Amino acid sequence: MSKVLITTVPFADKDPMPIKLLDEAGIDYLINPIGRKLQEDELADMICDFDVLIAGTEPITEKVMANGKNLKLISRVGVGLDSVDLLAAEKRGIRVSYTPDAPAPAVAELTIGMMLTLLRHVHVANNQMHQGLWHRHFGRRVSEVTIGIIGAGRIGSGVIKRLSSFNPSKILVNDISSSAKFSCMSWVHSATKGEIYKQADLISLHLPLTAQTKNMIRYDDLRAMKKDAIVINTSRGGIINEHSLARALNEGHLAGAAIDVFEEEPYRGELRHIERCLLTSHMGSMSVDCRTRMEIEATEEAVRFLSGRALTSLVPEEEYEVQRSAL
Amino acid sequence: MSKVLITTVPFADKDPMPIKLLDEAGIDYLINPIGRKLQEDELADMICDFDVLIAGTEPITEKVMANGKNLKLISRVGVGLDSVDLLAAEKRGIRVSYTPDAPAPAVAELTIGMMLTLLRHVHVANNQMHQGLWHRHFGRRVSEVTIGIIGAGRIGSGVIKRLSSFNPSKILVNDISSSAKFSCMSWVHSATKGEIYKQADLISLHLPLTAQTKNMIRYDDLRAMKKDAIVINTSRGGIINEHSLARALNEGHLAGAAIDVFEEEPYRGELRHIERCLLTSHMGSMSVDCRTRMEIEATEEAVRFLSGRALTSLVPEEEYEVQRSAL
Repeated sequence: MSKVLITTVPFADKDPMPIKLLDEAGIDYLINPIGRKLQEDELADMICDFDVLIAGTEPITEKVMANGKNLKLISRVGVGLDSVDLLAAEKRGIRVSYTPDAPAPAVAELTIGMMLTLLRHVHVANNQMHQGLWHRHFGRRVSEVTIGIIGAGRIGSGVIKRLSSFNPSKILVNDISSSAKFSCMSWVHSATKGEIYKQADLISLHLPLTAQTKNMIRYDDLRAMKKDAIVINTSRGGIINEHSLARALNEGHLAGAAIDVFEEEPYRGELRHIERCLLTSHMGSMSVDCRTRMEIEATEEAVRFLSGRALTSLVPEEEYEVQRSAL
Repeated sequence: MSKVLITTVPFADKDPMPIKLLDEAGIDYLINPIGRKLQEDELADMICDFDVLIAGTEPITEKVMANGKNLKLISRVGVGLDSVDLLAAEKRGIRVSYTPDAPAPAVAELTIGMMLTLLRHVHVANNQMHQGLWHRHFGRRVSEVTIGIIGAGRIGSGVIKRLSSFNPSKILVNDISSSAKFSCMSWVHSATKGEIYKQADLISLHLPLTAQTKNMIRYDDLRAMKKDAIVINTSRGGIINEHSLARALNEGHLAGAAIDVFEEEPYRGELRHIERCLLTSHMGSMSVDCRTRMEIEATEEAVRFLSGRALTSLVPEEEYEVQRSAL
């Protein structure tokens, strides 16, 4: 009887190590046969009597857990916990682990690439060139613009660190903790979200999705931004309201946007029709090294659990507190 | 009677300062009425009795100079001199100036953006997303790959400097001068071109176009590269043979390419039909700050010349030597 259900896709695609870890421990497993992010009902049907779930970003709700009679551990491949009802898990004694550090370098690099692409309109030029149109777009350099970073945890800090070799002139940071960790960087300043919306030429989000951040950026916030501002979201869908973003872009507001994460994935929404909106398919953590590290860490936690050893990557109490405070 | 012909396009588009400099000096000028890069015959027709040419990358040949009876100064907006027949200019006593430092930061940033885009297949994902296709591409991070830099002058060095905050593991450099200037970077090593073709996962060119570098990378060189290598050219068209590149890509060789410069511009060639080839329209220097600095520097040189002051940005003797040695 299979013990472990692996729902995240892809899994062990570039490096077979996670599978090897399970095989060597003699653990039976099933890999998501649908091959894409599951919806709540699909997962509720599939969960049966698995003991451990090695999970992606599919919704792991009260309903899913009620169906998972044997479920004892949810081991998340990644850092976001918006998809897991932590309080329902706690009530049922289901433990939850995650891999908070592994995705950060890959997300930070994708974000820098998107910044440079949008600042120079490379994605628009690429479309035009493939259509046979030659137009030399003017762009801006990192040192010419004010950059706003909302959320300066593992990923936001990684973005700020990588920007340091581009001779940045001004980076405004909004974070729940102080920006004291950037005190050696004279170009980094604390700011409110409102100040960032008003002053920044480029705004990048590095926040978890919580009750507080859901729809945090709405139409009026976007309109408060500069007409030629750039917005990047590689964190979680729904933090910028997608319809508001499409509306603002369609009205000619904002120079561009880059969106890697969506309220519903796979995404097939209206942003697809806006050329200056750069779209990727939740690829933030999808570098071979980071993805492999995430899968191995989450699998190791599952193996530890099933061989009766102590868990090492349990989700800390403050994450439960975030969900409790939203009730 | 107009004294100055300005052929580069765009000109004074984002900052009127170059025009102001000419007006304040009481100098008459004509801006390229065709509005795109001129061909040899067009320039030969247009040059008439202008004293000074503020030039882009259009061909300034023996034939053009023969028609420019009054031409005494060519002031290049940019660093490349492949478009100027320096020996013909020397023979006729026409002086040539350029702006060697101004474009470098903008070209280096565009190159880094292209590196990150190609490493993560962002341009392909963006196309697919706009078509409604959801595929999560695996990519690589800077620290996972060996990067080959061919040409480490102003721009190549700027690329290496900016990569330093990405924790690079190995950068191979091929340059005519020693790589001693990178001695504080333990990850930078000298290498031959052949070693770079064989070992590098990502190869970026930062060379002038000369008789030595024209068609420097041909089909066999491309096939000597790794099957999943990435090639970037933001220097000059023709250094990688375009047909060879298209052939290699069409055969499934190389993971991707980014090409900003072409043998003939505006470009409408066969690379347009290859999705994993990222194409831009000679936009390397097109950041507002760098482009403005280039135009101002080239205009200041023209004003200095026409007001009888000493020139400060004359092309050095070694550039003449490069063209002489190609005879």
